Amino acid sequence: MRATMLYGAGDVRVEEVPDPTLREPTDALVRVLRSCICGSDLWPYGSMPATEQGRRIGHEFLGVIEDIGSDVSGLAVGDLVVAPFVWADNTCDFCAQGLQTSCRHGGQWGVPGVDGGQGEAVRVPQAQGTLVKLPVAEDSALLSSLLTLSDVFCTGHHAAVTAGVGPRTTVTVIGDGAVGLSAVLAAKRLGAERILLMGRHKDRTDLGREFGATDVVAERGAEGVERVRELTGGDGTHTVLECVGTRQAIEMSIAAVRDGGVIGRVGAPQYTEAPMDFGTVMRNITLTGGVAPARAYIEELMPDILDGTIEPGRVFDRTVSLDEVPDGYRAMAGREALKVLIRP
Amino acid sequence: MRATMLYGAGDVRVEEVPDPTLREPTDALVRVLRSCICGSDLWPYGSMPATEQGRRIGHEFLGVIEDIGSDVSGLAVGDLVVAPFVWADNTCDFCAQGLQTSCRHGGQWGVPGVDGGQGEAVRVPQAQGTLVKLPVAEDSALLSSLLTLSDVFCTGHHAAVTAGVGPRTTVTVIGDGAVGLSAVLAAKRLGAERILLMGRHKDRTDLGREFGATDVVAERGAEGVERVRELTGGDGTHTVLECVGTRQAIEMSIAAVRDGGVIGRVGAPQYTEAPMDFGTVMRNITLTGGVAPARAYIEELMPDILDGTIEPGRVFDRTVSLDEVPDGYRAMAGREALKVLIRP
Repeated sequence: MRATMLYGAGDVRVEEVPDPTLREPTDALVRVLRSCICGSDLWPYGSMPATEQGRRIGHEFLGVIEDIGSDVSGLAVGDLVVAPFVWADNTCDFCAQGLQTSCRHGGQWGVPGVDGGQGEAVRVPQAQGTLVKLPVAEDSALLSSLLTLSDVFCTGHHAAVTAGVGPRTTVTVIGDGAVGLSAVLAAKRLGAERILLMGRHKDRTDLGREFGATDVVAERGAEGVERVRELTGGDGTHTVLECVGTRQAIEMSIAAVRDGGVIGRVGAPQYTEAPMDFGTVMRNITLTGGVAPARAYIEELMPDILDGTIEPGRVFDRTVSLDEVPDGYRAMAGREALKVLIRP
Repeated sequence: MRATMLYGAGDVRVEEVPDPTLREPTDALVRVLRSCICGSDLWPYGSMPATEQGRRIGHEFLGVIEDIGSDVSGLAVGDLVVAPFVWADNTCDFCAQGLQTSCRHGGQWGVPGVDGGQGEAVRVPQAQGTLVKLPVAEDSALLSSLLTLSDVFCTGHHAAVTAGVGPRTTVTVIGDGAVGLSAVLAAKRLGAERILLMGRHKDRTDLGREFGATDVVAERGAEGVERVRELTGGDGTHTVLECVGTRQAIEMSIAAVRDGGVIGRVGAPQYTEAPMDFGTVMRNITLTGGVAPARAYIEELMPDILDGTIEPGRVFDRTVSLDEVPDGYRAMAGREALKVLIRP
């Protein structure tokens, strides 16, 4: 089959690789119908040292089960399924508490011995715990929104859930990328009273307004924080959803959150130290969030997609074939595309 | 009257100062029956530049109302009351959400124009919101335990509450000072399944065991974390209550907490940057806590003191008169005393 390989910074290729086969009785084979490129794929794409052997890449996909191990129950060949961006047994104590990203028998996609999602097919370890059946047909118009359950919408939701967003909550979302916009949609879905979206790209913040943002703050840094404070009577918002991961973003989060407030961070940190100093203690600021246990949220979020209440798939603004994946990376890295959908 | 003044590092004096009088109709005057020295008093005691005018110090006290402003209801001359370590109106929106430390009309003790707690009497601003009546007599044996409602026991409780300690929670308490021991007692009171106390002073950790610690870890740093991991099957504890405030303590907290776990920090940070890096995001670690809104907890905690269920006043291991306060500072700074009670 063909799959996407990353050989080093800027060097993505689509190549023939061995067809996947069942290795464990807990495996399933999934023929990929939709995959996509994640903002986090852009880190190795931007910085990985050149290698001769390359590595698989991609961790978001949905598709059809083509073969299934003898220990997998509740799923069958022919089922249309979505995979969260971390595979997990969904039975261990971490999974039971909804933290499938720390599963005792789980792991990541695209690491040695495990397929990546940006290919024609994937061997899915711990298939019974990992895969969730989608009650739609292969030609459903909902596939792109359902694909966001794999990562991006669940990640925005995780930011909002860990920050405690609810009907009486004011929210600042930092970042107008696909995760930030997903966080806006998630906060709106959870009933947030007011949603301030910080972002500078008008086409993106326009979608953010459609997703539920009540205000857009185009300024950044201290100026952006000042604007958030102005809009909130000087107080800041009850929660900040940090969807960027830069040092500036975490500094803005702390400065924009209200005393007693919560920062839900899902931006993968490019910083190693956060300024959680004396002032944050005096103000009782909470820093929470993390890598989203998407598996924990899929069943809860899916009905709103199936009945059309939400359309998180609107974050995809470009679609490529598998052969065009290198173009998709270039477009996302160059900010020409918000998020790229792949139809192998 | 006489009151404690700090003139610079190591320079505490007890001096004649003007008698306090009512200034605002919302004030009350309290004759101090019990006060004490806080670990946080040791920071200016250790580092304040020498000054000519000095400043008042102390923020924990209980006593008898001797005069009261016309706008204060629910309290009367003769009432025995305890004051939390931050005064507050207890009616603003922050107070209403239990964050009296961020009260819109509140403030600290011992700042210019406001008395400190280590003296014969105190003018209490926002008396109606600040003071809580104690249903005991002036000679009650419970006074020292009731005094801990002013700060230290509420601070330990805040660490446990913000970390979400409950019956199925394992807890590591970092620090065997008065706050750490209070955190042990608070975690036990909240039903914690297991409480690991990290501390090196046997007399203190012995009291910690009486307060509810199930295990004592005398090692520090990486060795201490290793021991916590050993005791918890490699996982760490669901919560860590950080009651020290050093960089090492926050590093140990992050290393000792379980994936998905919560660090409740009440140690006043001597660091400005916390290592909340990529790993803490992958592990979904939450950093919460802060300066304790003691006022929010007093009514809830008092009954357990009144009926003898808990004796948080056992953290006091030395009692001094007002004149002996300088000795009390020396004893606490030199770690000869855990916490010093003052009987003016």
